[in-house]
Amino acid sequence: MEHLAEVLLDLFVLLLATKIGDELFKRIGQPPLIGEILAGIFVGPAVLGWYSISPETQLFAEIGVVLILFQVGVETRLGDLVRIGPTAAAVGLFGVALPLAAGLGMGLVLGAPMEVAVFLAAALTATSVGITARALADLGALTSVTGRAILGAAVLDDVLAMLILALATGLIAGEASLTDLATLLLLAGAFVAVVAIGGTGLLRRRPALLTEPKFAETPFLPGMIMMLGLAALSATIGLAALIGAFLAGLVAGESSERRALEHEVAPLAALFSPFFFGFVGANVSLESLTDARSLAILLALTALAILTKFVGAGLGAIRLGRRRAAAVGWGMVPRGEVGIAIAGIGFASGAIDAGIYAAVVGMAVLTTVVVPPFLGNLVRAAEPADIASGD
Amino acid sequence: MEHLAEVLLDLFVLLLATKIGDELFKRIGQPPLIGEILAGIFVGPAVLGWYSISPETQLFAEIGVVLILFQVGVETRLGDLVRIGPTAAAVGLFGVALPLAAGLGMGLVLGAPMEVAVFLAAALTATSVGITARALADLGALTSVTGRAILGAAVLDDVLAMLILALATGLIAGEASLTDLATLLLLAGAFVAVVAIGGTGLLRRRPALLTEPKFAETPFLPGMIMMLGLAALSATIGLAALIGAFLAGLVAGESSERRALEHEVAPLAALFSPFFFGFVGANVSLESLTDARSLAILLALTALAILTKFVGAGLGAIRLGRRRAAAVGWGMVPRGEVGIAIAGIGFASGAIDAGIYAAVVGMAVLTTVVVPPFLGNLVRAAEPADIASGD
Repeated sequence: MEHLAEVLLDLFVLLLATKIGDELFKRIGQPPLIGEILAGIFVGPAVLGWYSISPETQLFAEIGVVLILFQVGVETRLGDLVRIGPTAAAVGLFGVALPLAAGLGMGLVLGAPMEVAVFLAAALTATSVGITARALADLGALTSVTGRAILGAAVLDDVLAMLILALATGLIAGEASLTDLATLLLLAGAFVAVVAIGGTGLLRRRPALLTEPKFAETPFLPGMIMMLGLAALSATIGLAALIGAFLAGLVAGESSERRALEHEVAPLAALFSPFFFGFVGANVSLESLTDARSLAILLALTALAILTKFVGAGLGAIRLGRRRAAAVGWGMVPRGEVGIAIAGIGFASGAIDAGIYAAVVGMAVLTTVVVPPFLGNLVRAAEPADIASGD
Repeated sequence: MEHLAEVLLDLFVLLLATKIGDELFKRIGQPPLIGEILAGIFVGPAVLGWYSISPETQLFAEIGVVLILFQVGVETRLGDLVRIGPTAAAVGLFGVALPLAAGLGMGLVLGAPMEVAVFLAAALTATSVGITARALADLGALTSVTGRAILGAAVLDDVLAMLILALATGLIAGEASLTDLATLLLLAGAFVAVVAIGGTGLLRRRPALLTEPKFAETPFLPGMIMMLGLAALSATIGLAALIGAFLAGLVAGESSERRALEHEVAPLAALFSPFFFGFVGANVSLESLTDARSLAILLALTALAILTKFVGAGLGAIRLGRRRAAAVGWGMVPRGEVGIAIAGIGFASGAIDAGIYAAVVGMAVLTTVVVPPFLGNLVRAAEPADIASGD
């Protein structure tokens, strides 16, 4: 009972704080989700210590980002993603190659062993699409060319980041084999392809399928079952849970009752997403700013993370024109919870020390906070028609 | 990452199973929530073992019952509760006195030490209003005389059960003082009174208060903040978290935008309540049925639990007439998650052994499963006007 009271208090504190941050940032005309992240830093262990990271509060954060991606999936059509496929692939590949090289290079400069270098590379590589997706949705630009290029690239990006992480953990265990990596790649690719193509195909043939059960007046509960199932499967394979949630949304969005679904998911996502943004902030450790070495690593990592992803992903999107390339490159910059999770795995396995851990987490949060303030102008310049029409 | 995948899988399995149970029971014309509880038994540790009880899945269950009571609070008006106050008090007092005496007597018969007897008494005393509230809502009888008598009595019941539990844990620690118990009683009473009267008074004077923040277009997010805060406070005092959630709903229900609030809470409660009902089922341990002593205790406890609560609470409501008294008495029977929580505290503290623990949990589940199938007829007989009008 006492433990439950503590967890409820953590959740209360974080929801209240993030909504105050939201309120203040709306009033000063800044992106509200930055207000939510800063509120998380403030009530988290770094400053007040009123909110603590526990398995339960972490689950709420995860459900938050899973719901954001489900919602994005519902508003995305597979055909649109396929049409932008080649560009998205280029964005994903270039957007992974440059940060990967930078991470390995940074490992060399630090004189770190190979597994540390690969961990840094994995953390620099992994884009967190949650932040950008929410920002794009706020701008009404999710279904624009820029929005679709980012979403498609983010899926590929996550598959590649998973492979790099598998390589890093394999190196630590002393058993990194090319066969294992190839198996993982095939598995992840098959999962994404089978669910996306098979699932949407089934729903297109039977658009009322999700409302056939008596327990379901709308596709909401069947959609939530699918979301949890595919998120669990995705996490089991080693992909981010949000990839499965995005695919579930993609499938459920083909339902004939899509509007009712959107209507019922909206309050749920509004309630849970602050637990995610606040959690991202609460991971910040200010200790990394007092130690000169960690501070230097933090700044170098952050600069590299922003520069390599912006240039790499931007180059991949160059055929869309310079303005769209800039918006896509910038939209891929946030490392968010994926970077934090990779840092956590590296720290738990003993591969990276507390100083580098704090620096990687700091990089993940800084790359996340820096994106929304400029994304609006970049997307407006890239997609004047979409923004003007409001969709 | 792996741990997260397991938790997501647990949640997926339970949601899928409970919705299949819901579907089957709807198709055979039985109360769907029994289908959900049976599904929980089936996928839980007792049978398939596909769903396991962890701090995270327990939190989801708790959020489920918290949301049910918040929803009930929104639909309840304080004035209606106050008007039925004296009757509700009689229902609460008699409905506690008889099970309390039975629990102590059963302890004597078993030759158990005083603290075990008090634990049995506490477990027999505590009504779980979640089940009845959901069943009443399904019948459209929440605001009927019967519904209000049950809700009012449930609050008092929980305060008294908390005192008995405090006495039991105090006896174990060897420090049960009347002063401590009196302090607890005052604290709990003050909490309920201040929030209920102060909160609803404030909202009645300023019914648009909850939509004044820019982050809140409807009272939904402020309501959720209040719900988590009061649930945490309630659990911190030692009351069930759902009491705080009920009070939060009572307050938020005075808002001018109440319809919008109900609309946004509905999908959330629909998603989370199956995690609660499934969790109640998953606590069942079939081992208690193979051991003759535990089986005897289980059957004796269950019979006592049903009889003493039905007669006690029914006697308290006798001034409402025999039909309403029967409906109220029966509605107070479920021990649900409150009984399970008390058994867990007793087991964790070493006061009760595994056999008695399993018997108490079994009693809590059986008293819960037995109620909905008959509640409909009893309430229809007691409140023909309310049921006919649908509200």
